[in-house]
Amino acid sequence: MLKNIKAVIQETVNSITDNCINQDLFLLDENEHIPNRKIIIEIIRDFRRIMFPGFFGDENITLSAPDYFIGNTLNRIYERLLYQVKVALSYKNTENMSGDALNKESQDICTSLIESLPSIQKVLLKDVEAAFKGDPAAKSKEEIIFSYPGLFAIFVYRISHELYKLKVPFIPRIMTEYAHSRTGIDINPGAKIGRYFFIDHGTGVVIGETTVIGNNVKIYQGVTLGALSTRRGQQLSGVKRHPTLENNVTVYSGATILGGNTIIGEEAVIGGNAFITESVPPYTKVIVKSQKLVFSSK
Amino acid sequence: MLKNIKAVIQETVNSITDNCINQDLFLLDENEHIPNRKIIIEIIRDFRRIMFPGFFGDENITLSAPDYFIGNTLNRIYERLLYQVKVALSYKNTENMSGDALNKESQDICTSLIESLPSIQKVLLKDVEAAFKGDPAAKSKEEIIFSYPGLFAIFVYRISHELYKLKVPFIPRIMTEYAHSRTGIDINPGAKIGRYFFIDHGTGVVIGETTVIGNNVKIYQGVTLGALSTRRGQQLSGVKRHPTLENNVTVYSGATILGGNTIIGEEAVIGGNAFITESVPPYTKVIVKSQKLVFSSK
Amino acid sequence: MLKNIKAVIQETVNSITDNCINQDLFLLDENEHIPNRKIIIEIIRDFRRIMFPGFFGDENITLSAPDYFIGNTLNRIYERLLYQVKVALSYKNTENMSGDALNKESQDICTSLIESLPSIQKVLLKDVEAAFKGDPAAKSKEEIIFSYPGLFAIFVYRISHELYKLKVPFIPRIMTEYAHSRTGIDINPGAKIGRYFFIDHGTGVVIGETTVIGNNVKIYQGVTLGALSTRRGQQLSGVKRHPTLENNVTVYSGATILGGNTIIGEEAVIGGNAFITESVPPYTKVIVKSQKLVFSSK
Amino acid sequence: MLKNIKAVIQETVNSITDNCINQDLFLLDENEHIPNRKIIIEIIRDFRRIMFPGFFGDENITLSAPDYFIGNTLNRIYERLLYQVKVALSYKNTENMSGDALNKESQDICTSLIESLPSIQKVLLKDVEAAFKGDPAAKSKEEIIFSYPGLFAIFVYRISHELYKLKVPFIPRIMTEYAHSRTGIDINPGAKIGRYFFIDHGTGVVIGETTVIGNNVKIYQGVTLGALSTRRGQQLSGVKRHPTLENNVTVYSGATILGGNTIIGEEAVIGGNAFITESVPPYTKVIVKSQKLVFSSK
Amino acid sequence: MLKNIKAVIQETVNSITDNCINQDLFLLDENEHIPNRKIIIEIIRDFRRIMFPGFFGDENITLSAPDYFIGNTLNRIYERLLYQVKVALSYKNTENMSGDALNKESQDICTSLIESLPSIQKVLLKDVEAAFKGDPAAKSKEEIIFSYPGLFAIFVYRISHELYKLKVPFIPRIMTEYAHSRTGIDINPGAKIGRYFFIDHGTGVVIGETTVIGNNVKIYQGVTLGALSTRRGQQLSGVKRHPTLENNVTVYSGATILGGNTIIGEEAVIGGNAFITESVPPYTKVIVKSQKLVFSSK
Amino acid sequence: MLKNIKAVIQETVNSITDNCINQDLFLLDENEHIPNRKIIIEIIRDFRRIMFPGFFGDENITLSAPDYFIGNTLNRIYERLLYQVKVALSYKNTENMSGDALNKESQDICTSLIESLPSIQKVLLKDVEAAFKGDPAAKSKEEIIFSYPGLFAIFVYRISHELYKLKVPFIPRIMTEYAHSRTGIDINPGAKIGRYFFIDHGTGVVIGETTVIGNNVKIYQGVTLGALSTRRGQQLSGVKRHPTLENNVTVYSGATILGGNTIIGEEAVIGGNAFITESVPPYTKVIVKSQKLVFSSK
Repeated sequence: MLKNIKAVIQETVNSITDNCINQDLFLLDENEHIPNRKIIIEIIRDFRRIMFPGFFGDENITLSAPDYFIGNTLNRIYERLLYQVKVALSYKNTENMSGDALNKESQDICTSLIESLPSIQKVLLKDVEAAFKGDPAAKSKEEIIFSYPGLFAIFVYRISHELYKLKVPFIPRIMTEYAHSRTGIDINPGAKIGRYFFIDHGTGVVIGETTVIGNNVKIYQGVTLGALSTRRGQQLSGVKRHPTLENNVTVYSGATILGGNTIIGEEAVIGGNAFITESVPPYTKVIVKSQKLVFSSK
Repeated sequence: MLKNIKAVIQETVNSITDNCINQDLFLLDENEHIPNRKIIIEIIRDFRRIMFPGFFGDENITLSAPDYFIGNTLNRIYERLLYQVKVALSYKNTENMSGDALNKESQDICTSLIESLPSIQKVLLKDVEAAFKGDPAAKSKEEIIFSYPGLFAIFVYRISHELYKLKVPFIPRIMTEYAHSRTGIDINPGAKIGRYFFIDHGTGVVIGETTVIGNNVKIYQGVTLGALSTRRGQQLSGVKRHPTLENNVTVYSGATILGGNTIIGEEAVIGGNAFITESVPPYTKVIVKSQKLVFSSK
Repeated sequence: MLKNIKAVIQETVNSITDNCINQDLFLLDENEHIPNRKIIIEIIRDFRRIMFPGFFGDENITLSAPDYFIGNTLNRIYERLLYQVKVALSYKNTENMSGDALNKESQDICTSLIESLPSIQKVLLKDVEAAFKGDPAAKSKEEIIFSYPGLFAIFVYRISHELYKLKVPFIPRIMTEYAHSRTGIDINPGAKIGRYFFIDHGTGVVIGETTVIGNNVKIYQGVTLGALSTRRGQQLSGVKRHPTLENNVTVYSGATILGGNTIIGEEAVIGGNAFITESVPPYTKVIVKSQKLVFSSK
Repeated sequence: MLKNIKAVIQETVNSITDNCINQDLFLLDENEHIPNRKIIIEIIRDFRRIMFPGFFGDENITLSAPDYFIGNTLNRIYERLLYQVKVALSYKNTENMSGDALNKESQDICTSLIESLPSIQKVLLKDVEAAFKGDPAAKSKEEIIFSYPGLFAIFVYRISHELYKLKVPFIPRIMTEYAHSRTGIDINPGAKIGRYFFIDHGTGVVIGETTVIGNNVKIYQGVTLGALSTRRGQQLSGVKRHPTLENNVTVYSGATILGGNTIIGEEAVIGGNAFITESVPPYTKVIVKSQKLVFSSK
Repeated sequence: MLKNIKAVIQETVNSITDNCINQDLFLLDENEHIPNRKIIIEIIRDFRRIMFPGFFGDENITLSAPDYFIGNTLNRIYERLLYQVKVALSYKNTENMSGDALNKESQDICTSLIESLPSIQKVLLKDVEAAFKGDPAAKSKEEIIFSYPGLFAIFVYRISHELYKLKVPFIPRIMTEYAHSRTGIDINPGAKIGRYFFIDHGTGVVIGETTVIGNNVKIYQGVTLGALSTRRGQQLSGVKRHPTLENNVTVYSGATILGGNTIIGEEAVIGGNAFITESVPPYTKVIVKSQKLVFSSK
Repeated sequence: MLKNIKAVIQETVNSITDNCINQDLFLLDENEHIPNRKIIIEIIRDFRRIMFPGFFGDENITLSAPDYFIGNTLNRIYERLLYQVKVALSYKNTENMSGDALNKESQDICTSLIESLPSIQKVLLKDVEAAFKGDPAAKSKEEIIFSYPGLFAIFVYRISHELYKLKVPFIPRIMTEYAHSRTGIDINPGAKIGRYFFIDHGTGVVIGETTVIGNNVKIYQGVTLGALSTRRGQQLSGVKRHPTLENNVTVYSGATILGGNTIIGEEAVIGGNAFITESVPPYTKVIVKSQKLVFSSK
């Protein structure tokens, strides 16, 4: 029997090798690389350490002396991210940039991201406040920072959105899919999201690439802000395909809002399990009134 | 260019440090600590080792000699949990307890939790049985213990609920959010849940803080047992905001049941995607009869 | 106080030990083992390394020399899986096979699985293509392989389905529940799924054990392909309880399709949040037209 | 160039494979195994945890409740050692034992070793005392247990010597070579060593297989208790080739004592760098009086 | 058989527990701790990172921006060392210090050590230079920093000596025994060693607690600077028992120099394997002229 | 007090930063790197896996199928070593090679090393045989491969010597110092050593850079093959400074043989603790006859 398995392994190796050679997707040319998912996740953790230093920083961070810690972490983020961005820009290198241009571009991108961190941090503080005000079950702001998946997904989104705006390939999506995997909340890095944003529970939330969300919006688990699907696929790349939610909108669990021209007006409230493909005016509540058949079963 | 990034990092460090100093949330005072999420997850794993010793214990656990293993694991749980509970009680220390009072309180809490473990284990066995009876796809009870996310979420809930009842801050929620992250099932530690409880598939299930669930209840993926949302937020803290499910209720996938006064009576069956905000009498089936528009598209 | 906790631990150890002895589920007899979940997850990672060697293989895999890497990885998979399969077949050993028969059976199973890998790899390439064509937000096929949870869940399913067909206990389900935990997508290893299959976003998708899916099918997050539930439980084991989707069907987010006799015909489109328990003819669109009550709230 | 290295690797693989096939030493037959060095080192650590529980045990070991910890560790030692002993006895299996005989023999060996632990522990306590009395630089007995390499080497020797007496192949030597690597002290597991033994500093100490050492002996770094070397090699296997040191002997640094008939009598003192190949009577001091040539160099 | 081993384990647990209870050395009282060897080794690594930042620091340390890295590492060293020093001072607490006094003392010690680091760093640079000048086999100073065991042992000694001077129990010896284990060089933290010190190869070197070494001294492997041994043991604690080496002394391999009153004068050279128990005047060479018996063996 | 330590840390950071800036040794320029010690140790482990595949290879290596494993490991060695060699050649880049020349040189070096592996493997087999024949305490050749420090040091030397001959900076010494640290045996990679070489026990052995050793030589612990030391240091770099040992020489423990013109003739035997600075003719025994003073002390 053992001989048998040896022959099977030999043949399988050959077939898989053939598959790989015939399919340029599977194997990289020498010197071609792709960004390292594991390193990118470590970078996210470092971002979290400096965004919420008292919570995820090292134990020696106290109010009186955070600067060495923050500076050292920022240095590490810069160096690692710089390398990953270079790799991402180099892959396929569709714009045929020179090595020097790639270096310069990567440095500009990382510098720009780092410059934006203090304001991202302020925005995240507002998101924490929104969660605390919005959820009676929240015992404290600390609990939100510590354990709320919604806040984690928003934090990752806010970082990755900067990289998306800077047109970095691969990395923003790797970041948000990491958050998706941990929280069940799938926010495309391309979405534009305002301040005081709160996602409660969050499992199953999908926020599409061209979604626009105003300030003070609150959404629940299972909400889809998606595209009207078609089979036109890649032809729609770049077109606004996902809805707009104006300020102070609330969307309850399981509601689905689709389409690039669909605008949910200011202060509107979308009820649970609603299915919306057309705009909703401001100051409006939409409630699903499903027919129910009730039997006495006994 | 390098100089540039150095300057940017310097400024960013300063801004983030300012943010932190102006915002007492982000940085802790010296000697102030928060519970350690990683340790709490390890404590959960230890609980699982003694609740299901043949499955998650060490390899040397056989029917004939489990006591040293269980005793050693309990000792470790006690010591680690005691420290985390002290930290949690000390943080902000709103009741201004003395150090000795904090110690005594923490010891009482941990002793009490440990005393409750044998009966929790018996209840978990009943949950396994409920899953086996309820799911034709289950090949064995072993498979359920080993791989069913619903059982894992219920196990974590049953432990964390004890700590919730003992009024421990932070830790119960860290525990259930860990289960939420792994399973997509979000059971608030405050919920009251009876025996023979079964959650099938489970992704997207939300069970709110003041939910009450009887015995022999079965719910599917995407079910929300939630609050009628308002913007009153923290003012509602403590009020019963989530529904009650009496014995033998079944709730199918995607159903949403909201409100603190909503009671789903004994033996009632709530159909998939139903949206319920009012009580349902016992022995009743609620089925969503959605209108469908069917086109021949060719 | 300390004495107290010592006594409590002692009693708790005794009670848990009693629970274990009275309940043959919890403790294994000597020489009885169950498959090792951690090793099975490592085996999945090895499978991924050889299915997508440029992406998850070691850094030294280039187009020019993948064979040693693939061969070595296959050897490792074979050896580890062989052991786990033996353990799984031995547990309870309901067919009372001899040691030699168990060995032979395990070797046949693993050889058979390895032989099927090249064609599984080809099918996965088609799944990548389906995702690229189906999602305007996909920037490249590489991004899909790298970060799309749907593809990961399908990859794990396609491996585990082979083991399911070979009647291996425990292991297929451990595999798919691992994917479920990471992606929120729960595909039972028993389902039969055709080529060019695409799951977008995916959180909350449930595909039951006896589901049959044709080629070129596309489904979105929160879709359930489930059973009409009853309390008959284990009596239904083996019966076809889940729906059939013919070629080119599309199912939008949150739709629920239930029942073993429910057939969704070729090219049919099932709208978001639809609840389907009866067959839908080919070339048909089903759209939920929910009544909405819209108030001007101001 | 790359092609070149590919060819070179190919040829190298072939040559090494040929070497291996022509040399039965290098590759094992299927189902032939050798003990696992890493596991054996972990077993040594476990032994140390129960020999010195307050120092190397878990943090939760206090005077009041060590038994669960010790019992659990002993269970783990037993199970792991049993497996390694079986592997060691099975390799080459020169006595052609049946599987059952191998099992029985392994169980007897491990049981016997475990029975001897309490008395080994008492002996180790005496070794600690000897070190404390013998070294003015020792600040406390705790420091000796914690950081003295001599005690560590003696501890490992005392365990491995039991296995040597039980005729276990491989494992005793793997244990003492681990201590050798960490301390520079090479005590062959076959040596017979009495109570209150102290090795100071220790680097370079060699104690040969058939050495006999009485009680209350003290030796310093660089001492060799060795064989009179010949080129007769394996023919001398089993013969007493190393010296005997009677009670209360002291041997200073760098001294070399050789030969199986060499007896260092009671209370004798061997000076630094002495080279001894003949017996020394009791109550005798041997001092090297080396001639020195002293020049004024300026 | 199994029952048997169970009984044996039970009895062994009881005996070991009895040993422990009868021997106050082995088990600690509750709330009594001993310093953590693993943490102390990590602290040594951190010291090395800031003493030689280009070599053992993180990859992102370049000439242009080392300060955040150094500051963050110092913070971490301070916090961890503070805790270990407190533990060390508290153990047995022979001076009966109050909690506050212990805190203050620990802070003073750590502050003092940190203040001394820049000058230790300068001294280490001189040691590197001495090694480079002294060893023709050294290809570069970088090679010395990177791979010379002598430099590592001296570095650990120079740190631990500061703590020794500050009268910290346990920790200095744990540090130097760590270096001893890695290099075979055993320098007692109490020794006083001048500048430009070089140990070549180093295995087997022993430098006793009350040794005094001047500047520009060079010693080789196997050199002992030890005490004239007696059986008076602890009575000699504190007395100068080890030799003094004045400036520019060289001691070749295997030489042994013993005694507290033994002074090796300036510029003296001690030949290999010399055994010295009396002072040697300055500018003197001591060479061992051993008689050799040479036979023609053929 | 806390403020105090903050100030101290600030000043210390500044002083260390100043030290670093004033001392070009300590900090690297941007883009300057040094080889990674940790990776080099992993490469050594990989070499060992293919030199002794049945002992240190993965568990799945059996006589029947080692080629995938060997090929995959060689690929990994090549890739990692190539990078480390490039780094080593680039550092300071004293020959001002272009990037392309550095690449070509590095590839040639690594290819050449890999080509030499099969013959190194054969030589190592002879070393194993020499150890087995030379040591009556060796129970089997397997025990030697598994646990003899002498063989490990020789293995590392034989690999590093190839890199030394290829004039690779840093890496050969990092390799042999790793072996030195684990075994106490310090073989400079420059030494030339013949076949059937055996080092017994080995702690304290030093074999200098320009040593030449013939075939079938056997040396014991504490043997130095060194240079006649002078203070001329770096001026002697490159000159033959260490002795020559012809075929079949034996050197017993603690012997010191010094000087580049010192030749130990064929079949000569050097007794323990001998100190040799002049040549010894072939077929000669040198025995130290130390005067001993023997007192009756009672």
